[in-house]
Amino acid sequence: MSFNDERLEKEKVFRDPVYKYIYIENQIIIDLINTPEFQRLRRVKQLGTASLVFHGAEHSRFGHCLGVYEITRRICNYFQRNYSSTSPEDGLWNDEERGVALCAALLHDIGHGPYSHTFEHIFHTNHEEITTKIITSSDSNINKILKRVSDDFPKQVASVIDHSYPNKQVVQMISSQIDADRMDYLQRDSYYTGTSYGNFDLERVLRVIRPYKDGITFEISGMHAVEDYILSRLQMYLQIYFHPASRSMEEILDHMLERAHNLYSSNQDESSFASKMLMPFFNNSFTLKEYLALDDGVLNTIFAQWRDYPDDILSDLANRFLDRKPLKSVSYDDTTKNLLPKLRELIQTAGFNSEYYTATNDSYNLPYDTYDPQEANSKTQIELMQPNGELVELSEVSTLVASISGKIVGNQKFFFPKEMLSADQNIEIFQPIYEEFQSYINNDEIINP
Amino acid sequence: MSFNDERLEKEKVFRDPVYKYIYIENQIIIDLINTPEFQRLRRVKQLGTASLVFHGAEHSRFGHCLGVYEITRRICNYFQRNYSSTSPEDGLWNDEERGVALCAALLHDIGHGPYSHTFEHIFHTNHEEITTKIITSSDSNINKILKRVSDDFPKQVASVIDHSYPNKQVVQMISSQIDADRMDYLQRDSYYTGTSYGNFDLERVLRVIRPYKDGITFEISGMHAVEDYILSRLQMYLQIYFHPASRSMEEILDHMLERAHNLYSSNQDESSFASKMLMPFFNNSFTLKEYLALDDGVLNTIFAQWRDYPDDILSDLANRFLDRKPLKSVSYDDTTKNLLPKLRELIQTAGFNSEYYTATNDSYNLPYDTYDPQEANSKTQIELMQPNGELVELSEVSTLVASISGKIVGNQKFFFPKEMLSADQNIEIFQPIYEEFQSYINNDEIINP
Amino acid sequence: MSFNDERLEKEKVFRDPVYKYIYIENQIIIDLINTPEFQRLRRVKQLGTASLVFHGAEHSRFGHCLGVYEITRRICNYFQRNYSSTSPEDGLWNDEERGVALCAALLHDIGHGPYSHTFEHIFHTNHEEITTKIITSSDSNINKILKRVSDDFPKQVASVIDHSYPNKQVVQMISSQIDADRMDYLQRDSYYTGTSYGNFDLERVLRVIRPYKDGITFEISGMHAVEDYILSRLQMYLQIYFHPASRSMEEILDHMLERAHNLYSSNQDESSFASKMLMPFFNNSFTLKEYLALDDGVLNTIFAQWRDYPDDILSDLANRFLDRKPLKSVSYDDTTKNLLPKLRELIQTAGFNSEYYTATNDSYNLPYDTYDPQEANSKTQIELMQPNGELVELSEVSTLVASISGKIVGNQKFFFPKEMLSADQNIEIFQPIYEEFQSYINNDEIINP
Amino acid sequence: MSFNDERLEKEKVFRDPVYKYIYIENQIIIDLINTPEFQRLRRVKQLGTASLVFHGAEHSRFGHCLGVYEITRRICNYFQRNYSSTSPEDGLWNDEERGVALCAALLHDIGHGPYSHTFEHIFHTNHEEITTKIITSSDSNINKILKRVSDDFPKQVASVIDHSYPNKQVVQMISSQIDADRMDYLQRDSYYTGTSYGNFDLERVLRVIRPYKDGITFEISGMHAVEDYILSRLQMYLQIYFHPASRSMEEILDHMLERAHNLYSSNQDESSFASKMLMPFFNNSFTLKEYLALDDGVLNTIFAQWRDYPDDILSDLANRFLDRKPLKSVSYDDTTKNLLPKLRELIQTAGFNSEYYTATNDSYNLPYDTYDPQEANSKTQIELMQPNGELVELSEVSTLVASISGKIVGNQKFFFPKEMLSADQNIEIFQPIYEEFQSYINNDEIINP
Repeated sequence: MSFNDERLEKEKVFRDPVYKYIYIENQIIIDLINTPEFQRLRRVKQLGTASLVFHGAEHSRFGHCLGVYEITRRICNYFQRNYSSTSPEDGLWNDEERGVALCAALLHDIGHGPYSHTFEHIFHTNHEEITTKIITSSDSNINKILKRVSDDFPKQVASVIDHSYPNKQVVQMISSQIDADRMDYLQRDSYYTGTSYGNFDLERVLRVIRPYKDGITFEISGMHAVEDYILSRLQMYLQIYFHPASRSMEEILDHMLERAHNLYSSNQDESSFASKMLMPFFNNSFTLKEYLALDDGVLNTIFAQWRDYPDDILSDLANRFLDRKPLKSVSYDDTTKNLLPKLRELIQTAGFNSEYYTATNDSYNLPYDTYDPQEANSKTQIELMQPNGELVELSEVSTLVASISGKIVGNQKFFFPKEMLSADQNIEIFQPIYEEFQSYINNDEIINP
Repeated sequence: MSFNDERLEKEKVFRDPVYKYIYIENQIIIDLINTPEFQRLRRVKQLGTASLVFHGAEHSRFGHCLGVYEITRRICNYFQRNYSSTSPEDGLWNDEERGVALCAALLHDIGHGPYSHTFEHIFHTNHEEITTKIITSSDSNINKILKRVSDDFPKQVASVIDHSYPNKQVVQMISSQIDADRMDYLQRDSYYTGTSYGNFDLERVLRVIRPYKDGITFEISGMHAVEDYILSRLQMYLQIYFHPASRSMEEILDHMLERAHNLYSSNQDESSFASKMLMPFFNNSFTLKEYLALDDGVLNTIFAQWRDYPDDILSDLANRFLDRKPLKSVSYDDTTKNLLPKLRELIQTAGFNSEYYTATNDSYNLPYDTYDPQEANSKTQIELMQPNGELVELSEVSTLVASISGKIVGNQKFFFPKEMLSADQNIEIFQPIYEEFQSYINNDEIINP
Repeated sequence: MSFNDERLEKEKVFRDPVYKYIYIENQIIIDLINTPEFQRLRRVKQLGTASLVFHGAEHSRFGHCLGVYEITRRICNYFQRNYSSTSPEDGLWNDEERGVALCAALLHDIGHGPYSHTFEHIFHTNHEEITTKIITSSDSNINKILKRVSDDFPKQVASVIDHSYPNKQVVQMISSQIDADRMDYLQRDSYYTGTSYGNFDLERVLRVIRPYKDGITFEISGMHAVEDYILSRLQMYLQIYFHPASRSMEEILDHMLERAHNLYSSNQDESSFASKMLMPFFNNSFTLKEYLALDDGVLNTIFAQWRDYPDDILSDLANRFLDRKPLKSVSYDDTTKNLLPKLRELIQTAGFNSEYYTATNDSYNLPYDTYDPQEANSKTQIELMQPNGELVELSEVSTLVASISGKIVGNQKFFFPKEMLSADQNIEIFQPIYEEFQSYINNDEIINP
Repeated sequence: MSFNDERLEKEKVFRDPVYKYIYIENQIIIDLINTPEFQRLRRVKQLGTASLVFHGAEHSRFGHCLGVYEITRRICNYFQRNYSSTSPEDGLWNDEERGVALCAALLHDIGHGPYSHTFEHIFHTNHEEITTKIITSSDSNINKILKRVSDDFPKQVASVIDHSYPNKQVVQMISSQIDADRMDYLQRDSYYTGTSYGNFDLERVLRVIRPYKDGITFEISGMHAVEDYILSRLQMYLQIYFHPASRSMEEILDHMLERAHNLYSSNQDESSFASKMLMPFFNNSFTLKEYLALDDGVLNTIFAQWRDYPDDILSDLANRFLDRKPLKSVSYDDTTKNLLPKLRELIQTAGFNSEYYTATNDSYNLPYDTYDPQEANSKTQIELMQPNGELVELSEVSTLVASISGKIVGNQKFFFPKEMLSADQNIEIFQPIYEEFQSYINNDEIINP
């Protein structure tokens, strides 16, 4: 059977606030969406702790995955209309790749769990490996549906996601500097946060994108639309993804899980709900079923149990997380880094375990970079196609991109309890400590007093 | 102290996708938002099961409450600018009412729990009573903050919400045919579902609204904006709130909780997580703390536990709910109502317990109605103010509203497992039953075959 | 040659604020747009005097024509994807009709002149006849391009516009109760005025539209989207198209042209610029070239010349029109109509020629009506297709549409100089006349004092 | 009298697509808008020839002026709410400046004429001088209204516009790197062109703007919003304002006016409409009344007359302009500039007068620059205020702005008739010339063949 054998006579749609409609033209896509594995994505927020800062952004990975699928579908349609291959070597689009492209787009995040970034940090899970597993292991519903196309199809889909699929046009559609994944989340996160930063000119980009023999490129006439995308992405990082209050909530989450890890390791009691759900991960030995049982609600329910856990630090961190009491933050740099131990000491003296109540966190972004063969996981560069068919690397022709290429933007933050900034505290005894602490801070930065 | 004593020197804001910014001008509002009671609203979805149909609409009651506050604030500003009272009896706006209006707006939904409608149906809880309790009982954080204004202030705020507050302008701002509550949810649900229906002309309505001695009215010059609002509201009910797939998921939820209720009543084992959380409600004796411990995540976690419960019906319903397998539905009316027992019988014969696998559900809406003194909980009518200051009831001057006034729109649906519509089922034995069942259905309606 | 022989290898686009992009897939469409006849539409405002009330709405017929083309193109694509005909009698869509549909959509307004409605009223021109002439007369550029398809093609295109084309699917796409023309102008005028009324759910309507053997119908599952369209259209009429200030400016324009007609008839001097341009129309004998030489700028330039014309009424009306000094208006009905002569008399006494300084104007709209075989130019009804393929008339199934069907909404206005409402005028002598006049007005309506 | 003596008891509004409503709170503002001088702005397009490329962007300077007023009003409100001055030297906002600020904002473009840029180039008029004249000369309606505030008020308003007003907060509100003028046109032009580039985060910028003793600054916490504005502005220049087709139409306009100038200079016949209107400008001696008689419609009407002028070049250029037949363009740089004479020679040989049928035009933009005391008309830099009240120049803290500061973006274009690119022309004799011409072009650039 081929993917197109299950083409629907009449399209089906999902209402979507970002694209108005998401169009489904194949029964296989419907069936993939209806699996428990995919429905689970409704219970995993796209932005994690950032939704605690941008209250509008409570959307889940479910909508994002549909969105990546939809953009991929539009690219396929555009390629088929305007760049349809007529011979194997012409470097144009072969529409028989549509099936593998659409399935990979839909499933690229299927292995994501709740609060992914922090969870993986503490438990050493890996959502990419789990994605591959869900797609290729024979006991998943996803796998069964994909196999309707061919025995080999699940592996092909997984290989698009891990970049090893031979057709680089398909791979770069899903994963490259300008791919359907990024294009969707910038638009979607922008819509839900209520900011305009990520609102780059999607329609224009989707009109200047084109296939060539080694992947995806853009017509040079659309260079400004590509610049717009790069700046838009940069703004989203600076304004949304790197927001200090969101990073602060993530640090609380991290420290809470770390504390639980330490406590549970010394006490293998499995009677509580929390231990039952998390023990496989504390023990670093979990099944796919155990992994798929987790979602935001389950983790939050565990944290709620910890509000009453007989450990002051764990219960306090659980309250801070669930009731949204972020740590404060200040910037520091290489010249003031050496003051951190002193500040941690003051915080400890003021009654906070500095291991769990302070954190450092840097958020740096490289707006654009050209290919670096030294880099293991190098970002690929963006190529533009000139009227005569020759490619040119973006920063060679864009003054704007050349200006910011290789420049690093972002900052390093030190996080601590907001009590340290108190002006008049009840507990008079700590006042001198607070004042000393505050003497190290000016203009939201650590300074040498 | 008065509310204004804690006025902020510089406004604070929340980014909001519907209004761009929500403006906070008073420390009390900030502190109310930062309570655990209010933060809990982040974990309760605004639309419940409708988010399973409109995947974009995963927003929580947190944003809605901020939105109702913001609209109320804008109305206060508009009234203060244009209709400021200069003598007690002039029927204009006295800005000293602002504090109670803003707090009531912010807190009007504070007692809402997860899947409210269904939960209240099964457990006989009442979110309005709980709202009052949270505001007035001395052990809530909300209450402590409100008391900063005056000992009496919490009661005043609660009385706005239960409509007994003497100033009807304030009451109607929060609760009437066109109030800040409805104005926010129509806009917000429209934004998140990605439909345009609820997108009435808010700015225009907020420019023709005005106080008078007995409450809130609208300038007659803005009649079309009020018509637009009524039609917009009607469309949202027909298209979003009454969507059959959403109602179907709600029936599954209802039947699942009912089944659990029945099972738990006969088996008072409190060892499981699910029983611990729900037993107070099954026993109809719960504390405020127990109520506030519930949220969407907790309930979903309980349902996930039920996937493995040793009762086929409960575990199957839990799977259907979490994996989103809605029942099918057909319309019926008074002439075909008598066929329902026959259909239920066929469903039972096909192997489904018809008590748990079928449901009827009607969704009717009265687009607009004038005042009916007979009605216990009568909808109030909408008044318009003419240039000479006299009021006229809306349907007397609007041909459009007169046309639809008192007309009932909506439908009655019968829900059943989609297996009943199967064309070719593996289990040959049920085929004749399916065929008989299907002979009662034409054009998605029950018919006499 | 066929239309598709000039299909472009790669689509071309126009940036459009309403649809983001308008897609051109055929060289003939490009060439039609590039004719002087079509470019002239840039110089004719879509909304005429309404742009003097809604200052944002200064858009021209050029964009509207592109928009009607684009909606038609999308309908063709949707039909081709989902309802492609496989046999001549199956009532589905034959994509060979695409060429004639697209050209008719693009050109349906090509005969419109400046301030059409008023101009036609005074000069008895007819934009529909002129549209036909431009398409079919051999000396137009439009005609030459259309003939590239076939000698008969221009006539076919014209016959779609005058409803005589045999394929009713094509005719109704361009002209029916829900056609591409209305769909575009509601959206476009809504966008440019900055109101949300016309912003019906276009995407949804374009997903439930479908061909049948006698024309265009809609799936019954999309009934609410059709209701939404009808209400949206109604709101646009009530709020935008019937706005009293706009109708007032139109009356000034009408009276100014009438005055000029009277003056020029008695004085056939052709030396001035104004007479040179308008004389063919005053004389009711004009060539196509003379007609096409007119646009908004030319007429406004003529009016500017009239500012200095040696006739007090013409020069004053020209100033009022160009400097935007609308007449005031009040409503009247059948019971107060008899007072109009009295009011006109007072106005005349106050020094205004009542023939040129007063007007009556009614604006009534029938929100929806079923087919009436008695009516010469009857509105067609809207049909919905049920799951079993049978059609049902909209108001039979929609409570909402049934409610408003046949109801007339709108009003009658009497227009007069705002001086009549003066409170304290310098010229004491007129004060008693003003006061008497004002005694006939209450709540913006004429009353019996 | 003071400005506030005419404060309206109830606000009036204009519907506006960009800001929903523009709020008028003072009778003086209403009266200024109702002058013939201000109403004339309805007949002058904001974007000139760019509306021939972006067909949606047909909006006039009228809406822009209202928009600049509205943004200024919002800034005043924000300053009054959050930064109200309590002593003369505190560097905060004194709300008595509101009147002069609002009037200057509204009137800042009152002297603009049709196709300003080109018109001024050919006729050496100056819209800034005319603005001052309209405001200060006693025979304008504008002046009479302003004088109601005080005899000195018109001069104060004019001095804000020419930057000599002593309060720099007011001056910079209307004219600086981030002023109400730019903020409006970026948003407005973005809305009407249907592009998203100019859609920077206005609400955010309006929340971080603040007064200080020497003008306007921004809180450092809003740095990213300011960066967003700078990039947005840059994109609008690159994508919209510098669009080659628009520049090409401007060159045709320029050459047409130049040709007319040459023809009229040698033939002082004043009988035609065109000469009557333009002669004062050809003769460089015009009255304010003659200037104000011009608008887009009048100029286009003159050009339409020239279609039949007995000079091949003038009539052909008029046709090209009105029927929108742009010249083609290619880029060149310092290394290929020397080839331009050769290309002009080929064009002349092919039958086009190269003086009128070719042009060069550069469009360069400096995204951001710090203060340069050498520059006569230097751009001012942007300052940010740190938490401790000290200012810091933007590019010192923004990696992004530092990267692009001082970088020049844009290009140089050579324009020529598109006939030169013909592949197969009827007139065989020119074919070798065309081919030679084309050999100098590759990838839309001039090259050394």
